[in-house]
Amino acid sequence: MAGSSLRRVKIGLAYDGTNYSGSQMQPTGPTIQSVVEGALERLLDEPVRIRTAGRTDAGVHARAQVADFADHGRRELATIVKGGNALLPADIRILSAEEVSPGFDARRHTAGKEYRYFLHLANVCSPFFARHAWHIEKTLDLQSMREAMSHLVGEHDFTSFRAAGCAARDAVRRIDHAALTERHPSLWSIDLRGSGFLRHMVRNIVGTLVDVARGKIPAERVAELLVLRDRQLAGMTAPPQGLFLWEVWYDEPPVL
Amino acid sequence: MAGSSLRRVKIGLAYDGTNYSGSQMQPTGPTIQSVVEGALERLLDEPVRIRTAGRTDAGVHARAQVADFADHGRRELATIVKGGNALLPADIRILSAEEVSPGFDARRHTAGKEYRYFLHLANVCSPFFARHAWHIEKTLDLQSMREAMSHLVGEHDFTSFRAAGCAARDAVRRIDHAALTERHPSLWSIDLRGSGFLRHMVRNIVGTLVDVARGKIPAERVAELLVLRDRQLAGMTAPPQGLFLWEVWYDEPPVL
Repeated sequence: MAGSSLRRVKIGLAYDGTNYSGSQMQPTGPTIQSVVEGALERLLDEPVRIRTAGRTDAGVHARAQVADFADHGRRELATIVKGGNALLPADIRILSAEEVSPGFDARRHTAGKEYRYFLHLANVCSPFFARHAWHIEKTLDLQSMREAMSHLVGEHDFTSFRAAGCAARDAVRRIDHAALTERHPSLWSIDLRGSGFLRHMVRNIVGTLVDVARGKIPAERVAELLVLRDRQLAGMTAPPQGLFLWEVWYDEPPVL
Repeated sequence: MAGSSLRRVKIGLAYDGTNYSGSQMQPTGPTIQSVVEGALERLLDEPVRIRTAGRTDAGVHARAQVADFADHGRRELATIVKGGNALLPADIRILSAEEVSPGFDARRHTAGKEYRYFLHLANVCSPFFARHAWHIEKTLDLQSMREAMSHLVGEHDFTSFRAAGCAARDAVRRIDHAALTERHPSLWSIDLRGSGFLRHMVRNIVGTLVDVARGKIPAERVAELLVLRDRQLAGMTAPPQGLFLWEVWYDEPPVL
């Protein structure tokens, strides 16, 4: 493809992942990628391949995913938002569209990401939180959870928290911020900001933190797990519906 | 049925009305009433007929609906909550169950109710608000809306805001509180507390208030509409998905 005739477009995406088999192409069902590409292809009348900043698994949501694609600029950027949304189902929205330098790569150029995982701590699960949080009935020791979270901050090898099938070459990642906050009565969020995340890393961390808060694992065990580098030793994988890709950021615009 | 062998049970209900044809029996599809009665009948092994405090239309939600029914007390109250929820779909929850005096009537004995209607004011509709708010893209004049709301407080004849098929004998109702509040960035609620509400009254009021906020109707026109008592003159009916039955309250327990 000739570079000069192509425009590189960066889009912001929000989606409720409940009805999708994840962000990327899967043989098992519609994905965010397949549905967004289908809508953009109809709108732009040319093949479109998007790259997303962060992979999200089946059932995982995004408040502010970032993606990019190349097109021939037949439509204005505002039309990509308006027209794209007219063609997309209501559970996927294009939030913004801007032209970026041709070498921009939404995935490779991320400087950091924030994920939020919502816990709904209540006797009865609210029907308004069921699709977007992990409902836990039992009382949790949130102080122990906070203590466990403090061990995660910094640069660590997260082998104990990566999925068995994770393809990343090395498992060293940096978590800059980890917080537990009550966002709404009975709705708490675990916020993790960092340089990058391995497959299932947030859900495996959250599952282990909940085991800590249930008294099954001592808080200081989380520090040991980082050193032990063994997925078998850590806690369960938290269910997908509580997880949101919350924010993605980029340093400077990439220079070619 | 002999009164002495029957127990009167008051339950709290929360539901996401998206997938239901309203709170009451309808020939057109499953209702909150039919689904709750079906679950309770399975649990209690006897016919159950519930009475709800407030009727909710198709697609309307309840944060805290109240209902009552009579049974033979075969199950403990805690089991009605636990066992009922195990039999109900996740979009309907029994929040609580308590025994009340045999003459209690969840509908007739209400002292007041609060409804909240959520407006999502944003260029692009968030996939997380789409099921529970009315998305409005155009900028609204919220000050005019507040002025219009002030005319609603007090005892008025709400004929201009009742549905054509509303069966209530008279249309005089008292609104004690009307407020517009930003609950979350881009998510506003119109809260109406009052003695009672006519069919479609909240949605017709909200539709008219949005017409005011769009500059289609002057704010003081709302005071005139109350006097004119003509549904044809007021604004549109707001869509159902923004409406929540928020709270129901009772004076003293009814004495037989």
